[in-house]
Amino acid sequence: MDETQHPQLEVISHERTERTGWVLDSPEPPNLFHQLITSIKSKISSLHSKNKNQSTANVAFSFLKGVFPILEWGRKYKATKFKNDLMAGLTLASLCIPQSIGYANLAKLDPQYGLYTSVVPPFIYAMMGSSKDLAIGPVAVVSLLISALIGKIVDPLVDPVAYRKMVFTATFFAGTFQAVFGLFRLGFLIDFLSHAALVGFMAGAALIIGLQQLKGLIGISHFTNKTDVVSVLEAVFKSFHTPLSPLNFVLGCSFLIFILMTRFIGRKNKKFFWLPAIAPLISVVFSTLIVYLTRADKHGVNIVKHFKGGLNPSSVHELLLKSSSSDIGEAAKIGLICACVALTEAIAVGRSFASIRGYRLDGNKEMLAMGCMNIVGSLTSCYVATGSFSRTAVNFSAGCETVVSNIVMAITVLISLQLFTKLLYYTPLAILASIILSALPGLIDVHEARRIWKVDKLDFIICFATFLGVLFGSVEIGLLLAVCISFMKVLVTSIRPSTEVLGRVPGTNSFCDVKQYPMATKISGLLIKRINSPSLCFANANFIREKILKLLTEENEENTKDSIHVLIIDLSNVVSIDTSGIIALEELHKELLSRGTELALASPRWHVISKLKLAKLVDKLGRGRIFLTVEDAIEACFDSKMSTLNSC
Amino acid sequence: MDETQHPQLEVISHERTERTGWVLDSPEPPNLFHQLITSIKSKISSLHSKNKNQSTANVAFSFLKGVFPILEWGRKYKATKFKNDLMAGLTLASLCIPQSIGYANLAKLDPQYGLYTSVVPPFIYAMMGSSKDLAIGPVAVVSLLISALIGKIVDPLVDPVAYRKMVFTATFFAGTFQAVFGLFRLGFLIDFLSHAALVGFMAGAALIIGLQQLKGLIGISHFTNKTDVVSVLEAVFKSFHTPLSPLNFVLGCSFLIFILMTRFIGRKNKKFFWLPAIAPLISVVFSTLIVYLTRADKHGVNIVKHFKGGLNPSSVHELLLKSSSSDIGEAAKIGLICACVALTEAIAVGRSFASIRGYRLDGNKEMLAMGCMNIVGSLTSCYVATGSFSRTAVNFSAGCETVVSNIVMAITVLISLQLFTKLLYYTPLAILASIILSALPGLIDVHEARRIWKVDKLDFIICFATFLGVLFGSVEIGLLLAVCISFMKVLVTSIRPSTEVLGRVPGTNSFCDVKQYPMATKISGLLIKRINSPSLCFANANFIREKILKLLTEENEENTKDSIHVLIIDLSNVVSIDTSGIIALEELHKELLSRGTELALASPRWHVISKLKLAKLVDKLGRGRIFLTVEDAIEACFDSKMSTLNSC
Repeated sequence: MDETQHPQLEVISHERTERTGWVLDSPEPPNLFHQLITSIKSKISSLHSKNKNQSTANVAFSFLKGVFPILEWGRKYKATKFKNDLMAGLTLASLCIPQSIGYANLAKLDPQYGLYTSVVPPFIYAMMGSSKDLAIGPVAVVSLLISALIGKIVDPLVDPVAYRKMVFTATFFAGTFQAVFGLFRLGFLIDFLSHAALVGFMAGAALIIGLQQLKGLIGISHFTNKTDVVSVLEAVFKSFHTPLSPLNFVLGCSFLIFILMTRFIGRKNKKFFWLPAIAPLISVVFSTLIVYLTRADKHGVNIVKHFKGGLNPSSVHELLLKSSSSDIGEAAKIGLICACVALTEAIAVGRSFASIRGYRLDGNKEMLAMGCMNIVGSLTSCYVATGSFSRTAVNFSAGCETVVSNIVMAITVLISLQLFTKLLYYTPLAILASIILSALPGLIDVHEARRIWKVDKLDFIICFATFLGVLFGSVEIGLLLAVCISFMKVLVTSIRPSTEVLGRVPGTNSFCDVKQYPMATKISGLLIKRINSPSLCFANANFIREKILKLLTEENEENTKDSIHVLIIDLSNVVSIDTSGIIALEELHKELLSRGTELALASPRWHVISKLKLAKLVDKLGRGRIFLTVEDAIEACFDSKMSTLNSC
Repeated sequence: MDETQHPQLEVISHERTERTGWVLDSPEPPNLFHQLITSIKSKISSLHSKNKNQSTANVAFSFLKGVFPILEWGRKYKATKFKNDLMAGLTLASLCIPQSIGYANLAKLDPQYGLYTSVVPPFIYAMMGSSKDLAIGPVAVVSLLISALIGKIVDPLVDPVAYRKMVFTATFFAGTFQAVFGLFRLGFLIDFLSHAALVGFMAGAALIIGLQQLKGLIGISHFTNKTDVVSVLEAVFKSFHTPLSPLNFVLGCSFLIFILMTRFIGRKNKKFFWLPAIAPLISVVFSTLIVYLTRADKHGVNIVKHFKGGLNPSSVHELLLKSSSSDIGEAAKIGLICACVALTEAIAVGRSFASIRGYRLDGNKEMLAMGCMNIVGSLTSCYVATGSFSRTAVNFSAGCETVVSNIVMAITVLISLQLFTKLLYYTPLAILASIILSALPGLIDVHEARRIWKVDKLDFIICFATFLGVLFGSVEIGLLLAVCISFMKVLVTSIRPSTEVLGRVPGTNSFCDVKQYPMATKISGLLIKRINSPSLCFANANFIREKILKLLTEENEENTKDSIHVLIIDLSNVVSIDTSGIIALEELHKELLSRGTELALASPRWHVISKLKLAKLVDKLGRGRIFLTVEDAIEACFDSKMSTLNSC
């Protein structure tokens, strides 16, 4: 290097020292207590921010508008919109009535409870919810959860009243949990059910539900309360030994084929979207007429029979809140599970339709709305309601404009409850089974499972394990498996973080993983290592230290001529460090010293550098060993090499 | 901008496109199965690598050398070294004999079992261990664990034989667990007890041990089996109502003062390091003589009495391996806890002395050695032995050269067991208590606790919670608290990762957190956001998406003039992504589109870009939206802005 360049080098070095100064003298990061206080303050102020310089009445009104969005959009609501909403609501009701009866049957409740659940919750949601498309009511998976979980505690055939009481109590708890999640912004809790787990869970639940419909389709009277495949198939095979009426099967299958055909037509030709939507109602009406006219119930066709019409009765006195603690505990547990599953489904559905239409859903507000609707529901003889995927799709296709379509649907269901329930006495159970069966294929998303397999094998394992857990264990085992495996994965990433060797990408001053970018070149005599973990902590510090030392030994063995003089650790990914991490770094520094290798730290983050300063590690390493970037560190290495050469 | 510069811009842009190509066309990352196979292969090959081109005999010998390091260094062992080791071993023995008796008393075993534990395990460790300084034998915390955990199952006062059997069985399990950890390289499991937790745990355990010594010091005969402060203090106060001999207290205290004084002298003047080391032995000899001569045991001084000399008897027939399953399960659980605590202490001590001397300890080999020594120990009437901090320090100060000092110590203890046990009949229990008490201050590291408080408040909370858990709950509750809080912390980092806005650091092309570096400048019309999480997954994807959207809204509200046109997400910290993460990115992209903001991804990592390609998200975003670095992305923004301006 010629002498004329020296001054410039000096300048660069000065700049570098200045930059190292920036690293070391950065402002103090906010500490734990400060962060906590700031986060609480910002939450409070966000509640108040919109209300600055307003009168108390205005504040109250804007608060009310926040809780009841209908006050906001209701004032702008126009007749043209209502026309669309009316049509969508009527289409929705025609699908909703048979489905609700079917799902009530799945939940092992009398059919009117399904209809009740399609009246009150949609009303409440229309007041409080912010989705325009979501159709509220009972859904298949939650109905299965209810019957599977509560059926284990109280047998609905033995004591239907106690069973119903447990259902309402669980619903009350589900609503309370949902409201609490919403109020305390705990919406992230439902994220714990990962997408992959949900796909597996839904598919497993759909298969279980489908198998249980064999009961209605074949006309079995004695069936198992268990939900796993083995028990259900056992019950089905046993039933073949008892006399069965083939009429049930013929009736169910023929209408199932009819519904599936209308769906096929609806999918081929978008104009006929209403055909699959009203097909279930047509099936119910026709099959009921057939049974009524031929008196097929005398020839072995199982019919609904029990059907109480009228308004939702109050169920306040049926809640078991004063009962023994073990029942309350169980109800709370079941409520929590139902709350999470219901929210997961509703928010997934709501979000996907919101993103199609281009508006945003506030997850926490939605939870509050759903919580309130289920609490009120539990007081008015409803079980857990949520946003249904199949009905929301119909609502959307039917051109709904606002949540008013839900109100229209609720009123229609209410009218049917008042007037037509007597007519449903002769509805064959096989038809309800076929309506539920027809809704299941939508829950089994083979395409998505395939995509998960392609993209992420570990996610597929989670998905498949959940599926098998639901199928061969129970719904809870499936859910538990999903959550546990998912969190194991998160923990393993933290405990066993990867580290990588960096090289310079040609033509730039960037340093990247040499495995990912084979064109990146290592610098001889230097080892640059990046730690891929957000925290260098007790769980991984020793592991990382050992890994770095092992690699250093290997590198030195390979390149016997040019051994590693400087190890640069790129800390840009490490956001936090704890005392175990600091000790590991200190030990690493000592070990390297004994091997004659220098340690330099590049791009330490805010909290990390502040803690290294507090722990006096900066003093032990030397201020000159800490750099803003890897580039600076490398430059410094060559400068210092040169200076040592000069001093020799 | 003048026209002459245009060609250069084009060149830059070409290079950038090439670099984007590098990002997108990087080689396939190894998949999960491939990684698993490689890691297994590398482990197998690492076992064989040193044995290439060697005869079978040589292979066998080098394997033996791996397991028994004594074969390696034993051949080079010289007489000069032995002189030093002999001195160190004898000093060690003089400390070890009284301590072992005291710890056996703490573990509620007859005193000879403490001495047995100082014979066989040090021998085995000398063959297999690789630390030069570690002094093996019973330690205070493990003795406390044994008596606290097993005392809950079998009362040692009621059935000492059954109690002893459980102790040996737990020791056997502890050894087995340790050996398994070593064999399967599960050494990381002991890292789960973080440094902070360990400081708290040790301090809590020391206080508990100290309180329990009040029994011996005051001479209480009826004491509680519980370990928490409240129960122990209650027992102490109750005992004041019964007649106590003040002689116990006087004797214990005077010798405690003597030991502490010698320690003070030893610390002031390094030449007298042997004084505190032999002080306990002097105390035992003198106090025993005093009691023997004055027959003080007739006047209320409690003495050891039971003392069986001779070689370690076999305890093979005492292991409860064929007993009822519940006992085995309990013994295994206790064994696991003791194994972890013992290993944590031994490896921490071993490592710190190894780093002083400048050699390295292989954690897995150490575990195997400790496992074997405890398995053999459990068959020869020993309870769990490990490396003791106080004795290792004495060993080191006494100038030990190799682990031979342990052999010398073991032989000395063995000789004392053969010859002098009869003499220990009159040793007062108060002296044992004062010897244990004198060892405790070393376990309470107030200085370190203070440092933890200064460096990391959350770590201090872990430390303090563990301390309180041990003190007011039990040792298990303390440990459980420590592990749970530590892992909660790790999980929270993953579930609620921070994100930060980046700005350009003046004079460089680096982009850093604008909060950490106030001199970094944001670029108008652009928002650069870095995600601080190693995985964008189900647990945090929605949270991150919401956070980014919220920030974007805020930024747009603040700068009404110059709204954000492009959002650049710096993915350099994100090492892995799952299907939930991909969906969140896709939804973010859609939402941004609807707001008229473009999304660009910078520095995606290996697995991330490969999954984004598989999930077709690269196609949806457009190849031109993915960049090698943030710098490239910003350059591209200005280029495209320019071109849109030109096209206008």
